[in-house]
Amino acid sequence: MSAPIIAIDAMGGDYGPHCIVPACISFLAEYAFLQLVLVGQAPLIEEHLHGLSPVERQRLHVHHASEIVTMDERPSQALRGKPDSSMRVALELVRDGKAHACVSAGNTGALMALSRYLLKTLPGIDRPAMVTAVPTQTGHCHLLDLGANVDCSAEHLYQFAVMGAVAAEALGKSNPRVALLNVGTEDIKGNQQVKLAASLLQQARGVNYIGYIEGDGLYRGLADVVVCDGFVGNILLKSSEGLAAMVAARLEELFNSSLPAKAVGLMAMPFLRRLRGDLTPSQHNGASFLGLQGIVVKSHGSAKEEGIQSALRRALLEVRENLPQRLHGRLEHLL
Amino acid sequence: MSAPIIAIDAMGGDYGPHCIVPACISFLAEYAFLQLVLVGQAPLIEEHLHGLSPVERQRLHVHHASEIVTMDERPSQALRGKPDSSMRVALELVRDGKAHACVSAGNTGALMALSRYLLKTLPGIDRPAMVTAVPTQTGHCHLLDLGANVDCSAEHLYQFAVMGAVAAEALGKSNPRVALLNVGTEDIKGNQQVKLAASLLQQARGVNYIGYIEGDGLYRGLADVVVCDGFVGNILLKSSEGLAAMVAARLEELFNSSLPAKAVGLMAMPFLRRLRGDLTPSQHNGASFLGLQGIVVKSHGSAKEEGIQSALRRALLEVRENLPQRLHGRLEHLL
Repeated sequence: MSAPIIAIDAMGGDYGPHCIVPACISFLAEYAFLQLVLVGQAPLIEEHLHGLSPVERQRLHVHHASEIVTMDERPSQALRGKPDSSMRVALELVRDGKAHACVSAGNTGALMALSRYLLKTLPGIDRPAMVTAVPTQTGHCHLLDLGANVDCSAEHLYQFAVMGAVAAEALGKSNPRVALLNVGTEDIKGNQQVKLAASLLQQARGVNYIGYIEGDGLYRGLADVVVCDGFVGNILLKSSEGLAAMVAARLEELFNSSLPAKAVGLMAMPFLRRLRGDLTPSQHNGASFLGLQGIVVKSHGSAKEEGIQSALRRALLEVRENLPQRLHGRLEHLL
Repeated sequence: MSAPIIAIDAMGGDYGPHCIVPACISFLAEYAFLQLVLVGQAPLIEEHLHGLSPVERQRLHVHHASEIVTMDERPSQALRGKPDSSMRVALELVRDGKAHACVSAGNTGALMALSRYLLKTLPGIDRPAMVTAVPTQTGHCHLLDLGANVDCSAEHLYQFAVMGAVAAEALGKSNPRVALLNVGTEDIKGNQQVKLAASLLQQARGVNYIGYIEGDGLYRGLADVVVCDGFVGNILLKSSEGLAAMVAARLEELFNSSLPAKAVGLMAMPFLRRLRGDLTPSQHNGASFLGLQGIVVKSHGSAKEEGIQSALRRALLEVRENLPQRLHGRLEHLL
C-alpha cells in the first residue's frame, strides 16, 4: 500500500483548528510515513502552521473548504445546504480515493448522514453503526451502536453484531465473544427486537455469540463485543461519562474535606489522574463508523489534542487493516 | 395513623433470613413505633430470633409461609404455581390491610407480577414503574422505570413522569424538575415514543417538565426526576453499578502498584469506602413500585443488612407520606 493519507475536518469540534492543527503536527512526528490533509478555511489553518520545516509541510496538506457544519445543525441542512463544508469535502476526498480515511470531531448526525450519502454502505448493510472501545475490568470491549440508529430492528442488531465481531478481530482480538445487551441473561428477558436478534445470532456460523449480557457484565469484561440499539448505547456511554466525572468530582471533594484528607489527596493525585483517563473513553478514543465503503472516525466534540490523536490512531489502524474490505469479505459469508 | 406495620419477605434475596432477620431487628431498634412482620418458613426465621427480649418480640411478628419464589423463576410460575410463597403472602397482608407496606429482596419480575395481581394499579395507571434514587453531583435524582416495562408507549412514559414527580414531591422535593432521558437535548432527537411523550408533557399542567436530558446530564444533577423505559433504565442502572465496581477495583489496583502507592492507598481507604457507598445506590436504596394501590419496595437481591434497612426506610417513608393515596389524588387531575 502507498503511504496512508488521512483527511481531517480541521473545523470540527469545540476547539476547531486551534486544537486540531497542533494535534496533527504532533501526530505526524509519531508516524513517519503518514500524510494528513487538513480540510477547512485555509487562512485559519495556516495560522497554526508557522514555523513548520519544509520537510514537515510535505506531509501536511491544506485543502480549502469555505463552509462549516455547526454542532447544532440538522443533518439534512448539512447534507443539502452546505456543498463546500469542511466535513463534506474531507469525506469527498475519501470517496474520490484521495484519502484513505476521514476524521472529524464535528456534528455526529451530520457526519453520519454525509458519510452514508457520499461513501454508501457495504452490500448487505442497511445502516452503519458507531462503535468505540469501552474500558472493562479485564481490558476493553467494543460497544455498538452508540447513537447512529435510535430505532433498530432485530436484523439491524444482527448486522451490528457481525460488524462488531469482524472489527474486533481486525483490531487484534481473535474469536471475539459477542453478546447482546439486555435487562437480564435469561431467555425470556428483553424486548422483541433483542429476542429475535438472539435467535438470528444463535444460527449464525462464524460469530462467537455468547448470549445476553447486562450493564454490569459489560464492565466486568464478560464480552469483547456488546451490541445494542443506538438509543441504549448512547445513554450507556454518556451516563458512564457522567458517572466518571461525578466520581472525579466526589474524590476531589473528599480529598478537600479536611487537612489530613488534603495531604492524602495530594499524594493520590497522580493515581487518580490515570484513573480518570481510563474512564473517559469517548474523549480519548475515536468512535468508528462501521459498515461504510470507507473509513470514518468520529472524535468527541470536546476532545482536545490527545483525543484528536486517538481518533487519528484509530483511523490509521483501520487503514492498515483495510477494515472496510475485510468487513466486505466476511459479510458476504455471514449476511 | 396507627403504628406502621411493614411485611417483609424474609426468604428473598441472595442471603435470605440469615441476613434479613438481623437487619429487621436492628431496624426496629431505630424506630420505636414500627412493627415488622417476617413472612416465610417459621423455623428458619425463629433460628435468628434467639435472645430477643419479650418487648422486642412484641413488635416483630413471624407469619409462616411454606413456599419460596426462587430468583430464576418465571413470574407466571410464581403467580400460578406457588399460592403460599413468602412473597405472595407478604403482599396479601398489604392487600388485606394487615400491613401498610411490603418489602422484598426476591425475584423482581415475580414481585411485580404478584403486586399487580394482588394490589392492582391506581385508576389511570396502565403499568406500575420501578423508581430509585440515583446519586448526582448535586444530590440525587429519581430514575424510572428501572426494568418493570421493557416496551413503553408515549403514554406510559407520560404516566411515569407524573408518578415520578408526585413521588419526588412527597419525598421532600418541591416542584421537582422532570426530564425525559434522550440521546440529545434538541427537539429532533430521540425515538417516536420519547418525542410523543415530550409533547404530552409540554401540555401537562402541574408537572415541571424541563425537556430532554442526556446520560451525563443525569449525573450532573440537571433534573430531579428522569424518565425512560425499563430497558434503558435497567441498563443505565446496572452499567453504572458495573462502572462503580470497576472504579473501585482500579483504585485498589492503583494503590497496590507500588510501595508509595500502597501507603497513600491505606490513608485514602476511608474516603474511598464512603465513595463506594455513594456509588452503589441499588444496593443501598430500595427501588419502589409506583402506581399500585399499596406500597411495595424491592431491595437489591445482593443487598446485605444495610441495603435491607434502606429498603425498609424507604417503605416507612412512603407509609408516612401515604404515597399511593397522594398519587391517586394527583393523578385524578393529571391523567
